[in-house]
Formats: sequence, structure tokens, C-alpha cells
Amino acid sequence: MNPPVAIRRLSTAAADFEAAFAELQHWSEATDQAIEERVATILADVAARGDAAVLEYTRRFDALDAPSVAALEIGPQALQAALDGLPAVQRAALESAAARVRRYHERQREACGRSWQYRDEDGTLLGQKVTPLDRVGIYVPGGKAAYPSSVLMNAIPAQVAGVGEIVMVVPTPRGERNALVLAAAAVAGVHRAFTIGGAQAVGALAHGTATVPAVDKITGPGNAYVASAKRRVFGRVGIDMIAGPSEILVLADGSTPADWVAMDLFSQAEHDELAQSILLCPDAAYLDAVAAAIDRLLPMLPRRDVIRASLEGRGALVHTRSMEEACAISNRIAPEHLEVSSAEPQRWEPLLRHAGAIFLGAYTSESLGDYCAGPNHVLPTSGTARFSSPLGVYDFQKRSSLIEVSAAGAATLGPIAAELAYGEGLQAHARAAELRLPAVPPARVSPTGAA
Amino acid sequence: MNPPVAIRRLSTAAADFEAAFAELQHWSEATDQAIEERVATILADVAARGDAAVLEYTRRFDALDAPSVAALEIGPQALQAALDGLPAVQRAALESAAARVRRYHERQREACGRSWQYRDEDGTLLGQKVTPLDRVGIYVPGGKAAYPSSVLMNAIPAQVAGVGEIVMVVPTPRGERNALVLAAAAVAGVHRAFTIGGAQAVGALAHGTATVPAVDKITGPGNAYVASAKRRVFGRVGIDMIAGPSEILVLADGSTPADWVAMDLFSQAEHDELAQSILLCPDAAYLDAVAAAIDRLLPMLPRRDVIRASLEGRGALVHTRSMEEACAISNRIAPEHLEVSSAEPQRWEPLLRHAGAIFLGAYTSESLGDYCAGPNHVLPTSGTARFSSPLGVYDFQKRSSLIEVSAAGAATLGPIAAELAYGEGLQAHARAAELRLPAVPPARVSPTGAA
Repeated sequence: MNPPVAIRRLSTAAADFEAAFAELQHWSEATDQAIEERVATILADVAARGDAAVLEYTRRFDALDAPSVAALEIGPQALQAALDGLPAVQRAALESAAARVRRYHERQREACGRSWQYRDEDGTLLGQKVTPLDRVGIYVPGGKAAYPSSVLMNAIPAQVAGVGEIVMVVPTPRGERNALVLAAAAVAGVHRAFTIGGAQAVGALAHGTATVPAVDKITGPGNAYVASAKRRVFGRVGIDMIAGPSEILVLADGSTPADWVAMDLFSQAEHDELAQSILLCPDAAYLDAVAAAIDRLLPMLPRRDVIRASLEGRGALVHTRSMEEACAISNRIAPEHLEVSSAEPQRWEPLLRHAGAIFLGAYTSESLGDYCAGPNHVLPTSGTARFSSPLGVYDFQKRSSLIEVSAAGAATLGPIAAELAYGEGLQAHARAAELRLPAVPPARVSPTGAA
Repeated sequence: MNPPVAIRRLSTAAADFEAAFAELQHWSEATDQAIEERVATILADVAARGDAAVLEYTRRFDALDAPSVAALEIGPQALQAALDGLPAVQRAALESAAARVRRYHERQREACGRSWQYRDEDGTLLGQKVTPLDRVGIYVPGGKAAYPSSVLMNAIPAQVAGVGEIVMVVPTPRGERNALVLAAAAVAGVHRAFTIGGAQAVGALAHGTATVPAVDKITGPGNAYVASAKRRVFGRVGIDMIAGPSEILVLADGSTPADWVAMDLFSQAEHDELAQSILLCPDAAYLDAVAAAIDRLLPMLPRRDVIRASLEGRGALVHTRSMEEACAISNRIAPEHLEVSSAEPQRWEPLLRHAGAIFLGAYTSESLGDYCAGPNHVLPTSGTARFSSPLGVYDFQKRSSLIEVSAAGAATLGPIAAELAYGEGLQAHARAAELRLPAVPPARVSPTGAA
């Protein structure tokens, strides 16, 4: 009646490990040409016709008929009313989570978000000025997969960065609004909110319409249409990473109750059938215990079918020779979420080079990080933790270099710049530096200059 | 014989200013479908056939025949020999520039590149660990537009970040090597160098071949093939921004010698006919003086034809009502290079919100910044300074969140996480938190869970 979960069992000592590991890592997002073409059409239409196009697509795709885009705006009072209407326990949970997320991101701003400058010995001032973005758009999925925690995780770092205006878009198919999403917007300091979604919402934010203001960056998760639209408007506006399926990798030394680890694997797998849950452990008996816990606990969970499909399709229990080898394999995977479920997490942490977020010790379930520990839950997926970072305050700031060269500095730097500029065949660069010297030398003709 | 340069003259007081300004800002990169298709083919071929494909395309596109990709590697001794072979003045200029760029980026690492953590009142540890990328690829254009300064500006921040291996690729059409480029690689700490270029080099770095190691990120400028290839491999590896034409905006109060400002406008215009040079000034007589300087100085410059085409096609001298208005217009443009050529640069700097680099005062020519002041010359173009930053140490580092929740912390955070997880219909998330509570409550069925 409940067949055991056929999760892959691998061993690093097996001859075919590398082949099996490569297969496990393989994931490629199919690009759907039909979606690409429809998104291109929608974006062009929104750019050309603005509000009229947004209204039309909202009617068509969300079955939501409105007389104007202005009628789709949810005012601050309505957001606050949603918050006030929540059950007390839910409101308290939302506010506690927001407070902790805000506090973490304030620390992040202190650690890396400040302007700096120095003067060198010839009086030249050098530095970098850090400023918030003027206006950002937060895309929040609507319908079935409405995640109020995503509102917090996107809007709070923007707010902490000092973004002037945070504009949220959230589709409300057939007009159904999710109270927890609106309440989260109130808690997180969203300035304006529109019940629009899909590629048309991304287009409205990127190009601006008579009603929806053009933003400088768009963040937040969405379906294939939203992802395609974000890719296409990138350059006109900034975007965050396009996320792949969610992943967890658990490094276990066998000291954590097997039920806890099984539930952590489930908590990733329940997102979606393509989500990936992997457990690495040098203790074969522990892997057996987790496998048994999986079979025992799964039938109790409402999302058991999704979890089973995910674990059987993309999950794995991997027997390693040692914790050191497990760490090395984790670095090859560069997982989004990495749990170090060990009695000595601080021993292994220094060996871990690539991960979106590292959860240390048996008590640190990934789900605490998803909601309320403080760090962001928007993390690099599909191995991109090798080169990218969690969403943070820094994503809502940008830097400008500052240079103020004194007359003395220009006399020191001018000949260096001129020498290199002539070497590159850029005479105007050289002359701009030389004109500022106390005695302007005659112009040289560089070898590569076509006089 | 030398007709005056027909540079656009605008005035913010004119009725048609907004229309003229919109036209001035308009620039869109045409996507060449033929290039896109050839690049897709080349990348797929390099991914499938590795070294053999790289060799074949290098033979075809660079007229460079080699027995193996290994034969295209330039060893560290050859890089050092290029440095040793430079004229003394050129070598000194290169080394001085590198030292200043290194020093600036070391300050940058100190200011924003360090790990941090804190413990909250329930003993939970929170923080962020900053680590360098393992391996990066630096693309350096070859042939006519060989810029050794680009080698410094890409490789030094990577080196300062602590990147384990910096791999340079530079095409050498017909085997012609640029000694200054190789010397710059030696100075900047490049670990390996290959004389390959184009989409095939980007493909080799992204996928790895038997000889060229796969990297985690690719930075550096290139032609349309390189830009297209970088866009396509993005996701598998990180990339820097795809640069548009270079731009300078000069805010002048009329106190800088007109010749200096004219030469600064030239130094941008000489890059390329699509480069953009704009001067904003509230003093009409000063604009006339700069226009006269342009006509007088242009004939002396070897690259005068490119400069003229750039100034006439995309340049402008704009008369503003005030310096304050000039600053506001500058913020609308968000220029790559922004010179504040004023006797009071510190008065205007706080008004300037968006720019890649800000050059303060008459002595700070943009060309000093291009080569040797210290800050990076890889800057956001085409208005992207609204949301992005100069290339820096931070581009060669990534961050991982750290969370270690104590038993007491799990007891505090668990109910919050569970409440929100049930609210989102994610029961496994809720149970993973609840299993870690001192007294595990019975499971709830969330309203959206399909039990």
C-alpha cells in the first residue's frame, strides 16, 4: 500500500560512482520556444501600449476584469487592514520573522554596505560611494504557491538598503487575494502594490506605464513566463538570479536523530518534483536508519506524492568514506542549502567553500532559515553558489568609484597614464593627462595611431 | 578643409528639450541573428568536442595553426619575458599602474570583503562567510584593440580577492602577440594564458576541455561574438556585465580650461563611433569656448575621424539653468564616467546618485582613472549605473549565509517557522521545525495541503 521510497543509494567507493554522480547532478532547464515567443510579444505590447496592454493581459490570464490599472492598486490602508485581520498567532509569527530578518540585514549593511575613502600620499582622494537603488519591483507569485515569506525576504533587504520606493506586483487570479501576502507587504515596508502578474507585470515594471512606475531592478520568483520576461528585460533593469529547482544537501555524521534528517529531506522535496534532496554520510547504518524513517514518516504528510516523486527522481543517500570526502563532494555540488548535521559542525565548516546557506548542527533545520532565523532564503541554486551569493542588502545598493586628483597627483599620474595610453594607441587619453602637467610635453604619435 | 564639428547643442530651457534629450539617450544594441546562430553552434561544438573544436575554430578565425591546444598555452616564463623585454619607461608605467590598482582593490576588500557573524540573545549564531571564487577566466581582446590596462583591471581584483587560478585567453590573429598584454598578465598575477579567442574561448572556459580548465566566472570585454557567447554561458558560469558603448558626462561650472574639457570629451569619443560624450554647463559662453577648442584641437589627433563621427552622432553640449539642474540631468543619464569639472566638486558630489565613476575637480581627467588612479575602469554603461557597480573584488568573491541554532534557539524559532510554514501549506517544513521542539506538538493539516 505504501511501497518503500526508491531513493537512489550511492557509495563513493563504488566503481561507477562518478557516472552516477554526474547523472545526479544533471539538470537542465528546457527552454520552451512557445513561451519565449509569447513573452516577447507581451513585453513589446506592454512597452508600446502601457496600461491598456496590462489590463488586457490581466483580464485574459488572471480572469480579472478592472476598469483601469489604477483600480488594481492595493493601497497602504488595505495592506495594513490585511495585517490587522490576521489571527493573532499568525500576525505575531509574521512580525517576529520580519524583525529577525530585518536585524540580520541591518548587520549585513553595516558589514559591507558603507561608503569608504582614503587619501594617498600625493593628496589624491580615492574611494567608493554606496547608494541605494531609487526604485525596485518585487514579484510575488500568486495563486496556489503564494509565499508570504518571499515578500519578507525580497522587500526587507531593499528597505534596509534604503530603496526609495518598493513596488510589489502579485497576480490575483479571479481576484482572490492572499491575506498573508498582503500582511507581509505591510510588515516589510512595501510602498505600492498592484494585483498584476506574469510577463505583463514584469514588462510594466521594466518599461513603466502611465500607472505603474518604472523600476531599476526586479527581484522575486515566478513561473516560466516570469523567468523568461526577467531574462529579457535584464540590461534595461537589474534582476536577481533566475532560480532553478530548490536543493538541500545534508552532511551527517550520524549523531542527529534520523527522523529529523528525513524530515529535512522532505522539506526540500515537498516544494516540487524537481527539487533535490541529498544526504552524505560515512555511516552506512545511519543511511539505513534515515531510509527507514523516510518510509515511516512519508505516509503522514499531505504532500507525500510530490515528496516521493522528488526523492525517487532526484534524491540520493550517499555513503562516503569519511566526513572529509563528504565535504569535498559538497563543494563539487555547491548546494543551495547545506546542513552540517554533525556534533562538530565547526570542525567541518572551514572545509565548505561553496553553498548558498550553511546550517550548522542538529538543531538548525533548514526550515528555520527559510522563515525566521534572519538570513535570506533567496539563495543561488544549481551549483551557482560557486560564483554567486544569497540575495542581500548589497543587491539593492550600487557603488560609484570616487576619484579626486590634486594638481600634484596629476603631475605624478599623468606621465604613467600617458605612457600606457600611447601604448594602446589612444592619443586623446594621453593628451588629456598631459595637458594637466605643469609643463605640457609635445604630442607623440603612437605606433598604432593612424595619423 | 576642417569643417567645424557639428556637435548637438541643447538647452534645458528649450521647449523641445525633453524630445531632444530622449533622442540623445536612445541607444539599442541590435541583436544580429546570424551571429547568435553561429555562436550557438560554436558553443555546442566546443562543449561536445573540446580541444579539437577549439583548435579548428582558432585555425579558421585567427589563422593560427597549432598541433594542440597545449601548444597555444603561454607559460609563466614567456609572460615574464614579455615584461622583461619592455622599454624601461613602459615597464615602470605598467608596474606603477598595477601597484596603484592593487592598493585600491586591497582597500576595497578591507571595506566590504570580510566574513562577519554575531550571536543573538538565545545563542543562535548568524553571519556570512565570504570566500573567493576557485577559478576565473579573463577574456582579453587581441588584434587592433589590445588593451593591456584591461588585463590589470580584470586580473588584479581577482588576485586581491584570492581567486585560486586566473586563466587568461587572448586571441592572437596570425600568431601576433602583443608584448604589453603579456607583460600586463605577468604583472597582474595571471596563472595560465592561452592564445585563443572568440566564442570558442568562452566555450572552452565555460565547459572546460582536456587542456583548458573550466572556470567559475568569465569577465572581460570582447566583440559581438564574445558578448553573445558570454550571455549564453551565463548560469553555467558567472559573467560580468555586457558593456555597451563607452560614455562620459562632464558637469562643468566653467572654471576648467576649455581645452582640458575638450580633450576629455575626445578621450571618450576616440574609443568608437558609438561612444558618447556630453557636456552640461550653466554658462553658455563656456560651451562656446569648448566648441571652439574642439574645432581647434581635433585636427591634431590621429583618431580624428572616429572622434568626429562620435561627437556628431552621439555627442552634445547642453546649456542648463544651473549646476543643480545639471546634476539632476546627470542622474537621469546615470553615466559610466562622470567628471565634475568644477571649482567646488565636493559641493555637487552629494547630489550625484548614479554613475560608474565620479571624477572630481579639474585635474581629475577620466584618462587618469582609466589607467592608474586605482579604481577599476570596468564600469556600468548605458544607464545601468542605476543598479550596478564597477568591477571589483566583490565580483570575485561570493557569500554563504551561516546559521547555527542552539537547542534554546530552536525552541524559540520553531513555533514561528511552523506557523508560517503551515500558512504556506508546507507541512514538512513545519514538522522539521516542530520535531526539534522540547515537546513535539501533533501535526496540523494546513488549509492548502491536499491530504
